[in-house]
Amino acid sequence: MTLGAGIIKTLLPKCFFASGLNCGVRKYRPDVGLLVSDVPAVAVAVYTQNTCAGEHIQYCKSLLPSEGIQALITNSGQANTAVGPVGAQDNLAMAQAVANGLNIGVDQVLTASTGVIGQRIDIEKVVNVVPHLIEAQSTTADTFATAIMTTDLVPKSATTVVQLSGGDVRITGVAKGSGMIHPNMATMLGYLLTDLKVETSVAKTMLSDVTNTSFNMISVDGEPSTNDTVFMLANGKSGVGLQNDEDYQVFLQALRDVATVLAKSIARDGEGATKLIEVRLKGAPTQELADKWARSLTVSPLIKTAIHGRDPNWGRIVGRLGGEQVPAEAFKKLDLAVQELHLINQGQIQNLDLEKLRNALKQDEILIEVDLKLGQAGTVAWGCDLSSKYVQINAEYTS
Amino acid sequence: MTLGAGIIKTLLPKCFFASGLNCGVRKYRPDVGLLVSDVPAVAVAVYTQNTCAGEHIQYCKSLLPSEGIQALITNSGQANTAVGPVGAQDNLAMAQAVANGLNIGVDQVLTASTGVIGQRIDIEKVVNVVPHLIEAQSTTADTFATAIMTTDLVPKSATTVVQLSGGDVRITGVAKGSGMIHPNMATMLGYLLTDLKVETSVAKTMLSDVTNTSFNMISVDGEPSTNDTVFMLANGKSGVGLQNDEDYQVFLQALRDVATVLAKSIARDGEGATKLIEVRLKGAPTQELADKWARSLTVSPLIKTAIHGRDPNWGRIVGRLGGEQVPAEAFKKLDLAVQELHLINQGQIQNLDLEKLRNALKQDEILIEVDLKLGQAGTVAWGCDLSSKYVQINAEYTS
Repeated sequence: MTLGAGIIKTLLPKCFFASGLNCGVRKYRPDVGLLVSDVPAVAVAVYTQNTCAGEHIQYCKSLLPSEGIQALITNSGQANTAVGPVGAQDNLAMAQAVANGLNIGVDQVLTASTGVIGQRIDIEKVVNVVPHLIEAQSTTADTFATAIMTTDLVPKSATTVVQLSGGDVRITGVAKGSGMIHPNMATMLGYLLTDLKVETSVAKTMLSDVTNTSFNMISVDGEPSTNDTVFMLANGKSGVGLQNDEDYQVFLQALRDVATVLAKSIARDGEGATKLIEVRLKGAPTQELADKWARSLTVSPLIKTAIHGRDPNWGRIVGRLGGEQVPAEAFKKLDLAVQELHLINQGQIQNLDLEKLRNALKQDEILIEVDLKLGQAGTVAWGCDLSSKYVQINAEYTS
Repeated sequence: MTLGAGIIKTLLPKCFFASGLNCGVRKYRPDVGLLVSDVPAVAVAVYTQNTCAGEHIQYCKSLLPSEGIQALITNSGQANTAVGPVGAQDNLAMAQAVANGLNIGVDQVLTASTGVIGQRIDIEKVVNVVPHLIEAQSTTADTFATAIMTTDLVPKSATTVVQLSGGDVRITGVAKGSGMIHPNMATMLGYLLTDLKVETSVAKTMLSDVTNTSFNMISVDGEPSTNDTVFMLANGKSGVGLQNDEDYQVFLQALRDVATVLAKSIARDGEGATKLIEVRLKGAPTQELADKWARSLTVSPLIKTAIHGRDPNWGRIVGRLGGEQVPAEAFKKLDLAVQELHLINQGQIQNLDLEKLRNALKQDEILIEVDLKLGQAGTVAWGCDLSSKYVQINAEYTS
């Protein structure tokens, strides 16, 4: 897999093109991005469950699933959420400008917005930049990945080539995150593009499966966003399809790998974050509880600040699990390790020299492992530490 | 009502005595506190629902409700939680030392602990200070209120005299809070003392009622603690009881006032807090949802940081309500005001000059009012802003 890193370009799958330009909402940085497929693509999406949802969500829900999508425009800086009836008009105007420029139907154009809630989109600026976006199309994802950023520090993209029975297929993913990250059903903005030939229903199943173990398992601040969306577009231009179950599994795993890399990069680049936290929790009675409990540790401000300060205050981990109503019997037999240092074995405190733990917390990636021994379900969740920088960023976001 | 403020002393009800001394767990500050009633008192309590509960909780649950309680010892600095079997021994040793010193039964002594989870209590130090605590008893709550503090900046106490048909009754409350404050069922440590003559069952009902609208409606950081407990002790030494329903209502309201003052003082003194946030939410379909939704706003790091930075980013309020699954129809008709400035009326954005809002956010107390117009239930919840200081305190807590 190749990760987008500024120097190495992230190639798009066959006959996908992308661009990103500044329309004037932000000072310099690209703030509108365009994705184009030369041919109609199968398109599916998963969305936030936030009931105060962004305008693009209702619009995309009305179009998807589809087998005729050719473009997707995204603006950053203004979320087009909670702005009243003008929001739907502005959203449609964005789509119409792209349809006009590409000479396709407006129902072939998807939209997405991210930014401040309750601010009307600067629609003229966005519409005026569309012809230039169409001109600027390239075969790499990089300027698009930059255009969709809000408080992200780095653009997030990844690409991989999958070898199937019938030949090679490319998957390219782009995402943005940073704040208001605690996806429920979908997440922030994510785009998974492939030149695989695939049926809509299969794409839908795969996207849902992959999202549940990747984007849905990250948290920056426990805030479910109004605009979270993950799109998957497949234009079939590799000429290669899924011929058998092995193809399906190989492609699904590759798609999951791309989604997981993007999800982890969102957690790592959480607002103000200096460390990636990975929680591996097993021994839960059900998958739902495993996911809930693992995520509760990635959300806890007390755990996040302790890790930020390299404070070996591991009691906060069991304290939080208790707060989540983990059955009391678990505390008599659980195992807990941080950075592979065993703190509790079979419910017994190991009286580890805490200086060892303090040193181990100097790493950039922090691993928390919990075995509750209540059942068979397990999961992995990702988060980040909580720093003064998060407070600073969010105390001044619209200022 | 008189609030404890260091200079004005907080009187205890008749025949209650209190003291607080340093036993050596902390450097200088009192870290063990003792409450004594000259005669056996009716005692009830509500506790955290955290399943990884502190040792004192199981112990107090085994004794309460009771009509024979004469003392309550509390240590701060070490929570006596998640320390294995030695925890129960240490807890009993604390109670036994008080029973020996006062020449009463061990089953007449309650305990409470607050501090670091997973650290064994320094039991010798605590036991050795007990005789001195017994000597140091006074008729004011002040040194006790200081002894139970952890990261609290100020001791929290309040007292009031209630005029009932039969005469005057005093209520005195003491509490501690600061971090890990998101009570579920009970809260941090709270002590409500009165010389009212009252039956155990009535005391129990009143405590539960009052806790639900006071301590249970505050949040500092969304972390349900392992040791939250609110005690109510009534020793009857005023000789005055509840003779009729009016007495009941008058006393209940006074008890609620004391509890609310203490609860708000905990929110105001949240770790790193500079502002008290009050959320008044009405028009919810049920009381449960009203409480849940109001509390979600006091927990939101995005709202808390915006208020900290006086950033007029009100869209985060509706965004969070959406994240809490408030029915989408509400966003078409709700009213939202911050500091009495109307931001949304009947679902319509009021296009207020945001400089006005920014100025209004300079106040120390921030009022958020939401009317969802979905039903008849309403509530009030309290929280505080989120500052870099919170991060600093919790990045270094055990260091």
